Amino acid sequence: MTITQTNNTQSPISNHQSLFLSACKRDPVDTTPVWFMRQAGRYMPEYRAIREKYSLIEICHHPEIAAEVTLQPVRALGVDAAILFADILLPAIPLGVGLEFAKGEGPILQNPVRTLADVKNLRPVNPETDLSYVMDAIKILRGELKDNVPLIGFCGAPFTVASYMIEGGSSREFLKTKTMMYSDPQTWHALMEKLTVVLTDYLVAQIRAGAQAVQVFDSWVGALSPQDYQNFVLPYSQKIIQAAKAEQVPVIHFGTNTTTLLPLMKEAGSDVIGLDWRIPLDDGWKILGGDVAVQGNLDPALLFAPLPEIKKYTHDILRRANGKPGHIFNLGHGILQNTPVDTVKAVVDMVHEYRQ
Amino acid sequence: MTITQTNNTQSPISNHQSLFLSACKRDPVDTTPVWFMRQAGRYMPEYRAIREKYSLIEICHHPEIAAEVTLQPVRALGVDAAILFADILLPAIPLGVGLEFAKGEGPILQNPVRTLADVKNLRPVNPETDLSYVMDAIKILRGELKDNVPLIGFCGAPFTVASYMIEGGSSREFLKTKTMMYSDPQTWHALMEKLTVVLTDYLVAQIRAGAQAVQVFDSWVGALSPQDYQNFVLPYSQKIIQAAKAEQVPVIHFGTNTTTLLPLMKEAGSDVIGLDWRIPLDDGWKILGGDVAVQGNLDPALLFAPLPEIKKYTHDILRRANGKPGHIFNLGHGILQNTPVDTVKAVVDMVHEYRQ
Repeated sequence: MTITQTNNTQSPISNHQSLFLSACKRDPVDTTPVWFMRQAGRYMPEYRAIREKYSLIEICHHPEIAAEVTLQPVRALGVDAAILFADILLPAIPLGVGLEFAKGEGPILQNPVRTLADVKNLRPVNPETDLSYVMDAIKILRGELKDNVPLIGFCGAPFTVASYMIEGGSSREFLKTKTMMYSDPQTWHALMEKLTVVLTDYLVAQIRAGAQAVQVFDSWVGALSPQDYQNFVLPYSQKIIQAAKAEQVPVIHFGTNTTTLLPLMKEAGSDVIGLDWRIPLDDGWKILGGDVAVQGNLDPALLFAPLPEIKKYTHDILRRANGKPGHIFNLGHGILQNTPVDTVKAVVDMVHEYRQ
Repeated sequence: MTITQTNNTQSPISNHQSLFLSACKRDPVDTTPVWFMRQAGRYMPEYRAIREKYSLIEICHHPEIAAEVTLQPVRALGVDAAILFADILLPAIPLGVGLEFAKGEGPILQNPVRTLADVKNLRPVNPETDLSYVMDAIKILRGELKDNVPLIGFCGAPFTVASYMIEGGSSREFLKTKTMMYSDPQTWHALMEKLTVVLTDYLVAQIRAGAQAVQVFDSWVGALSPQDYQNFVLPYSQKIIQAAKAEQVPVIHFGTNTTTLLPLMKEAGSDVIGLDWRIPLDDGWKILGGDVAVQGNLDPALLFAPLPEIKKYTHDILRRANGKPGHIFNLGHGILQNTPVDTVKAVVDMVHEYRQ
């Protein structure tokens, strides 16, 4: 770090300020902030205890329980941000596609969207009322969280949400999704427009309820070529990101397998861009340019390695960030199910203790 | 194309020469050669008729049937190369891991390799005898194929084969594979060394039986960061490729999601490198440098699109290749199951009819 603290009151970040929000704005910080995608979840015993009584959807529907689950990793790990416990497919429920979470199977949508008529049949959604339980959880959390641990709201990006709605669940090849793009672009664009409106309203509602930053998850967009991203996805992601930015909170734009999409994701205009482990952090940051913050990029599989090995990789990422303002430490994708909690905690400490 | 034919006898490629082999060597050709990964398979009615009587493994075990299945797409499509019908996991059978192909499930390995003892328990393999049926199919095919349609042999690269052997089947996260790398590098390297010997012997045996080019499939290697590729994979892929090259046939090195791995794959030393649709062909070729040929890079999902749309993408790839010697047209991955045969044939014609 090139920033030197002369005394505590003049330090760039006081105890009441947020390392995470400062890094989103590329303000200098003396310690790299760290949080983890899917930091609340099955790998935590506290979460599993709650899941014995409630399904994933039931947790989301009960704001007190969603808030409790959101707080579990903040207490256990000492991370620098909380991320609301929710699912990117919650807006699909009021849209009327018949969302279910089959045991150990991931999401299943009983009424997938395949035609223009299907798009037209999607119900209108008012996130303030239809997803009020999400806003309620945010309000509870803002009362519980300290100022130095901001709350991140989030939504799926239109491509990733559309892919679930078209495929009817998870996918490896995204064949139905791509076939709609290539063979029926009218239906594709109609669906993307509809989702963009719903997801924008949803994200703005989260910010107005108290979310201090938001992340747009385009987890599967790396299945596309740059030209398809540009024609079929970028304009929609751009609209959501711009609308969230207009609410004066930092926006993080996340995807995996996105090396060749990074220059276009930059055009979408977020404050922070996620980098997965496939690209060394400094190489990715170089492609993006210095006027954007980056988040990443440890391989989640590394959390199953011995600590000295993890330390090597963690330090390598921090070394590549080189103390440049605007790095938020995270994984390249979400925490995997059987990850040891102690290891996750140890990584938080490694990041916090690191000095260039 | 900058090559002009002054008369037929002086044309760069006579009817008896192979466009495909010339392109592998970066010799000028007047027509871009084209073949498809998984060009023999379920999307063809002729193949499905044979599969009604024989399992995948039974086809491989019967050289006449394997040869017949290999020839089906050559007859139906007019492609410029035949690829031996086989499976990258065939060498796993004599290694003793209990390979099965469950219906619609992909490969299952009853005895996955997880420890150093498991690696030591792998049986010694002599491809000339243990996989003699593959060499017999190659010999039959060389008698059937004309000189202008060379036969491609192939093997899985050590990483991709190891991933199946460690995971016990297909995988999305490659968590067990990566965990072995990070937590038990001794076992990882022992397994990779063993596989490198077996796969090298297997590939060399195919060449000596008559394969006129070979492809090394590292289909899943894009799950790795460049530093892990360099430390855990590159030395082994390099050995196989060098051994095949020493037999004086062109070697194609294939992977998906490999944008950040391309400079390292170049170091592995093949004559041709596969590019998937995530990177525009000219951008990928630029990263690799002019001294290597490239193969690709249409998204297999595009074969489900209407022909005018496919033509747009196909011409875009050919335009990006810009007539530079050393481009073999192919998909970025294998043909998908329900691909319309007429569309595949139409793409062959589009490529053959294209002129810069």
